[in-house]
Amino acid sequence: MSVRIREAAGEDWPAMWAFMRGIIRAGETFSWDTDTDEATARRRWMNAPPGRTFVAVAGAGTVLGTAEMGPNHGGPAAHVASAGFMVDPAAQGRGVGRALGEHVVAWARDAGYRAMQFNAVVETNTGAVRLWQSLGFRILTTVPGAFDHAEHGYVGLHVMYLELVPS
Amino acid sequence: MSVRIREAAGEDWPAMWAFMRGIIRAGETFSWDTDTDEATARRRWMNAPPGRTFVAVAGAGTVLGTAEMGPNHGGPAAHVASAGFMVDPAAQGRGVGRALGEHVVAWARDAGYRAMQFNAVVETNTGAVRLWQSLGFRILTTVPGAFDHAEHGYVGLHVMYLELVPS
Repeated sequence: MSVRIREAAGEDWPAMWAFMRGIIRAGETFSWDTDTDEATARRRWMNAPPGRTFVAVAGAGTVLGTAEMGPNHGGPAAHVASAGFMVDPAAQGRGVGRALGEHVVAWARDAGYRAMQFNAVVETNTGAVRLWQSLGFRILTTVPGAFDHAEHGYVGLHVMYLELVPS
Repeated sequence: MSVRIREAAGEDWPAMWAFMRGIIRAGETFSWDTDTDEATARRRWMNAPPGRTFVAVAGAGTVLGTAEMGPNHGGPAAHVASAGFMVDPAAQGRGVGRALGEHVVAWARDAGYRAMQFNAVVETNTGAVRLWQSLGFRILTTVPGAFDHAEHGYVGLHVMYLELVPS
């Protein structure tokens, strides 16, 4: 299947929110309030520069997933990027997450970031953990019991890290 | 010296900003843009519930330092608190940081948080690192080169962690 990544536009939002809403409400992979309303989600996900928001679209133009990225902290720590990803559950297993991940890493490298850090990867989200590891990310630490999973109870949150510029 | 901790009020802000501004601009301990303007700083530091903002005041009422705290993430991860601290350089060595730290930890425990996590403790800020360790925090990991220190160049950022409820 051909998946294309491009910058998200305002008119993509309804198609994005259609699957984002369910992912947020499920409380299994995201550290957002599960009842986050649409306006708050849009404000948090549709980043202003220097951040970016991408969508993955099928050949026909259907939005299959999305990623947002930007500096993980400000000022003296703004050379490390972070990112978040959501893929429509109906499109899982089609390489959408990988396509988004590869695009975001390439974008961060081109933009001059020295590293990329994920602050809160739920350890039971093993598909995501393996995907990031296959892109070169390693687990720096796991914050014990930091995520109260809707099904599994207290599980750890991985801090994952990828160096983009040799130190 | 007697140091009292109380909730910050709007009228404390000018006295807080008087030393916060210099700490932010120095680029040695804080991961904020060094040119953060006063309105942005106030919005980020003066937390709305469930967050809190405290000040440490001398007997005479002079503001010597401040701390802000709240959930580190949202939703299923909102049971882990985080916090930030700034002490007026003119008041250093007088136990202000320790008084704020002890107060924040006690507050988080009373408020039912299960743990406290600091995401970005600059490794060259050894006074702070030792202080948090003396309060029971441990270094979970150090993100390599994640902070471009105004004097020392790229140094690490510690992720520090204190369990409040036995798991």
